[in-house]
Amino acid sequence: MPYDLIVIGGGCAGLSASIYARRFNMNVLVVAEMLGGTITTTHLVENYPGFISISGGELANKFVEQATANGVTFKTGMKVTKVWKDGETFKVQAGEEILEAKTVILATGTTYRKIGIPGEKEFLARGVSYCATCDGGFFKGKNVIIVGGGNSAVKESIILAEHASHVTIVYRGSAFAKAEPQNVKNMEETPNISIRLNSNLAEITGDTAVREVKFEDGTKMPIDGVFVEVGRVPLTDMVNDLNVAKNEKGEIIINQMSETNIPGFYAAGDVSNSEWKQAIVSADEGCKAAFKAFEFVSAKK
Amino acid sequence: MPYDLIVIGGGCAGLSASIYARRFNMNVLVVAEMLGGTITTTHLVENYPGFISISGGELANKFVEQATANGVTFKTGMKVTKVWKDGETFKVQAGEEILEAKTVILATGTTYRKIGIPGEKEFLARGVSYCATCDGGFFKGKNVIIVGGGNSAVKESIILAEHASHVTIVYRGSAFAKAEPQNVKNMEETPNISIRLNSNLAEITGDTAVREVKFEDGTKMPIDGVFVEVGRVPLTDMVNDLNVAKNEKGEIIINQMSETNIPGFYAAGDVSNSEWKQAIVSADEGCKAAFKAFEFVSAKK
Repeated sequence: MPYDLIVIGGGCAGLSASIYARRFNMNVLVVAEMLGGTITTTHLVENYPGFISISGGELANKFVEQATANGVTFKTGMKVTKVWKDGETFKVQAGEEILEAKTVILATGTTYRKIGIPGEKEFLARGVSYCATCDGGFFKGKNVIIVGGGNSAVKESIILAEHASHVTIVYRGSAFAKAEPQNVKNMEETPNISIRLNSNLAEITGDTAVREVKFEDGTKMPIDGVFVEVGRVPLTDMVNDLNVAKNEKGEIIINQMSETNIPGFYAAGDVSNSEWKQAIVSADEGCKAAFKAFEFVSAKK
Repeated sequence: MPYDLIVIGGGCAGLSASIYARRFNMNVLVVAEMLGGTITTTHLVENYPGFISISGGELANKFVEQATANGVTFKTGMKVTKVWKDGETFKVQAGEEILEAKTVILATGTTYRKIGIPGEKEFLARGVSYCATCDGGFFKGKNVIIVGGGNSAVKESIILAEHASHVTIVYRGSAFAKAEPQNVKNMEETPNISIRLNSNLAEITGDTAVREVKFEDGTKMPIDGVFVEVGRVPLTDMVNDLNVAKNEKGEIIINQMSETNIPGFYAAGDVSNSEWKQAIVSADEGCKAAFKAFEFVSAKK
């Protein structure tokens, strides 16, 4: 017997989808490497409506508890490597197992885009971070650089400048053309932010923590932290065989009800093409995807 | 000085919008007849991700507390009767006052739809009610009917059965296809609920209170209370002069980011054309509307 629904991903979107699916009395399985998702990397969440202030981990736990209370089944510690259509149902390769479902919700989220230079991996969480909002507070009174030139990098530089004594934004381009002008203006007017354009990082070095960065032009700079904000990569490799429509960023294109171009296949959360990435957006997209999956399964009965 | 943003409505959508707007450092005012919104009429909310089970009133309170903690300003006990464009800004007639704002989010929600039969208006609050959660307690040990067949009607029938000695659910359709299966199951398993399908009410009669209902097929039933749960009407009269695009239900048409056809004017929550009405959907639409209002105000600077 195929599952009514397999949800791939255990973050806000996937868990919300699973809660709703159970309330529709669907036979639902959540497959995830781990439960909680991106929100768990957020120190404090103060903008999820309903909670004045809660840690990302605690909020994720509440989602997990609610899913459990509603009778959701989980397979965790398991990577989904492939999803394909087989007649009327979907097949999902999860670890060694091949699972079957009438509908699938992809809620795999994103991963941080890496620069790919020596030291980046070695000093992760020892000075290298991909999230200024999460980790900025650890750099009070320190000197940091932020790598990137998009809107996120520009915005995060301002957040960092509230904590760090000095922030240098390092961008390979010659102008911040991809960022919102207002944000660029705010950044330029922040006294403790320096701008280094047409510049690429070559290496990150240190001992127990980051101490120095080297640029491609050979110059060096003593530094306490390196924030990398060069974009995110949606995790969609496993659905390459499905011919699901994506945008230029590789995000799954959904409509207002989380439907993709493939009947019975939905996407929700950061993996979708929603303009804005927020826990509340993910939870909403998850619940809508579950609703549409329920309608799809009901119509086939 | 105009407000950056006026939010009209104090339910999940409006409060979420106000929380986000404050986090964007906007000068925001919420105008509402009362705070809390439609969710306060819900006995128990078990599908808002983050809370396993919470009363609608308690969830609304959490939103209000969070808005207050973020420094949102409120004007309550005040009806907005008109919104119009005046040059670059919006004017909002709130009670006797005319307020001014750079952007407006309409989050007025809906009101109860009437059946439109003789006796319905006459016996309002004398046996006729549109809210089982609010008024169910007045019918302890009595016989009541509830009219409707959607998810709300099914859920409310169960709530009513906790109070009334007997509940008859009267629905014009032949099956409860629009309700969540779990709720239908719960209803069917409740011993003091009878189901009357393919049936329409024709008239409500009584003296100082409701005594009897008459059906379209001519049959009569002695009854103490009539609960009407046949849908909702979006509250948009105050924006009639704005030429904002609406759908055939009279709901404000928004895109995936809560934008309407009028720049600077957004809609969120039950008043929008979202296919599905849920607290989580409202909260999401509110936060997106605030994000877009923030972008709009920033771009004008």
